[in-house]
Amino acid sequence: MSELKIQAISFLKQLQTDICNELERHEGDKFFITDEWTREDETGGHGGGGITRILKEGNIFEQAGVNFSEVYGTLPLAMSSKLVGATTPQTFFATGVSLVFHPRSPLIPTTHANFRYLEVADKCWVGGGIDLTPYVLFKEDAVSFHQTLKNACDKFSDSYYQAFKKECDEYFYIKHRKETRGVGGLFFDYLGRDEPQRIEHYFDFVKTTAKSFIPSYFPIVEKRKSASFSERDKEFQLARRGRYVEFNLVYDRGTQFGLHTNGRTESILMSLPPIATWQYENNLAQTEKEKELENILRNPIDWV
Amino acid sequence: MSELKIQAISFLKQLQTDICNELERHEGDKFFITDEWTREDETGGHGGGGITRILKEGNIFEQAGVNFSEVYGTLPLAMSSKLVGATTPQTFFATGVSLVFHPRSPLIPTTHANFRYLEVADKCWVGGGIDLTPYVLFKEDAVSFHQTLKNACDKFSDSYYQAFKKECDEYFYIKHRKETRGVGGLFFDYLGRDEPQRIEHYFDFVKTTAKSFIPSYFPIVEKRKSASFSERDKEFQLARRGRYVEFNLVYDRGTQFGLHTNGRTESILMSLPPIATWQYENNLAQTEKEKELENILRNPIDWV
Repeated sequence: MSELKIQAISFLKQLQTDICNELERHEGDKFFITDEWTREDETGGHGGGGITRILKEGNIFEQAGVNFSEVYGTLPLAMSSKLVGATTPQTFFATGVSLVFHPRSPLIPTTHANFRYLEVADKCWVGGGIDLTPYVLFKEDAVSFHQTLKNACDKFSDSYYQAFKKECDEYFYIKHRKETRGVGGLFFDYLGRDEPQRIEHYFDFVKTTAKSFIPSYFPIVEKRKSASFSERDKEFQLARRGRYVEFNLVYDRGTQFGLHTNGRTESILMSLPPIATWQYENNLAQTEKEKELENILRNPIDWV
Repeated sequence: MSELKIQAISFLKQLQTDICNELERHEGDKFFITDEWTREDETGGHGGGGITRILKEGNIFEQAGVNFSEVYGTLPLAMSSKLVGATTPQTFFATGVSLVFHPRSPLIPTTHANFRYLEVADKCWVGGGIDLTPYVLFKEDAVSFHQTLKNACDKFSDSYYQAFKKECDEYFYIKHRKETRGVGGLFFDYLGRDEPQRIEHYFDFVKTTAKSFIPSYFPIVEKRKSASFSERDKEFQLARRGRYVEFNLVYDRGTQFGLHTNGRTESILMSLPPIATWQYENNLAQTEKEKELENILRNPIDWV
């Protein structure tokens, strides 16, 4: 297990660097800043830390954040019980990369990804996912995004893409709006926790999906970055970003967990858009194109 | 109890009208729209409804919402148990007015108020509160606001203002930001639930505090509405509105309850500002004046 932990940290740190480099390549003359931080454990001792990288007011991205963390300590009893069925508080170790990119252009979708490795008591597992939130929907972009993720999944099992695509649609559901946050992607958790003999397999799977992030997303950026858009497109993007905020603050388990357990607030809430709007009416979609998107968010479809 | 229910509905409906009229008087040529809605109960039957009134893009208010509701049905077991210690799901009736005003000018504070009457099984009680969220702090405005609320409280008991001011500071605490949402006011709940002989007293108390809303808030509007402000003041207001969104979506019990129990989403989320911003840095306060406000939000003070 210790060997896997070392591999996970090393892989995730490199992943953060690779993704930031790729994004900077597209930005040209705008760069990430780097914030290193440490975390106190429950007793005031050393509880790990992280590296938060943020690019603000870029040419293409209004804000892009990529966070690496490596934290450890003792889990509250409720969490220990839920995660590994323990009857006493258990020690834990968690390392992960999470990212959210908020583009300026409503033609480029927002994206979010997360990859993580956990140890609680004598168990370990991996989890993560990648998902896409378009504003002006180009179906071919959603298709190519899903196809790239499916190709990564198919190297491991014929059933993975379908299963984790479904989990993604279910996880990112905004119940009070009766719609998903976006057009989905992959979402998976607890892989290997109850199948210790397969942890290497799942670890490789997470590495492969993580490596598919760049080829799944950046071709869309490249394709859409120079196209012009209307004022209404931007207005619609800002209003839909309001829904993004609603999901993250009301439902997202990672955000809730972080905010309620004294996590580093700025790193957790870097997922929020730089600007969002709310209007009283629920009839957010006005044009045919907007209604087409809304319809898909209300009734997720198969993309590949 | 039935007599009190009739009185409560009648009082709250009139309160909604009075407050909307007062706000329109200040707006001049902008007016509220009215949305009447009905609610389905758990079995698809009639579960009451409400009247939502919204003024959008006003001269003084970017958005102002005043909601009246009158709903009934059966409470889930967990709520029944929590509220009245029941071991089976109980019938309930609830009526209330809630309002949030988001002014354009950062010199005018945002305000929120709520007044409600509830019946669960054979118990009934009242609750509510009024609070103020300034952006550019004028201490004299916070003082006059609190003084008006204190005068209302003092008619009933010497201890009420102090007790309910403290509850307000505690309730509107944004834990992950280590600050309160604003400079407080009053917050009270479950009044009369366990003292049925005093329900009339508490009912009168709620009516009196509700009537103090107009004289506590609108003199501030009148005083500040014509003054000019800087671009930075507006920027700071938008960023602090982000915190307002965080409180409402992460902590507010009414919002959480509404969103998780199939409440009317638009009426619940009319509390959100029309536009809000987030920046990665936590050093939101830049100027001396902004830091003074932040310091008060971190360490609530006595205003009267």
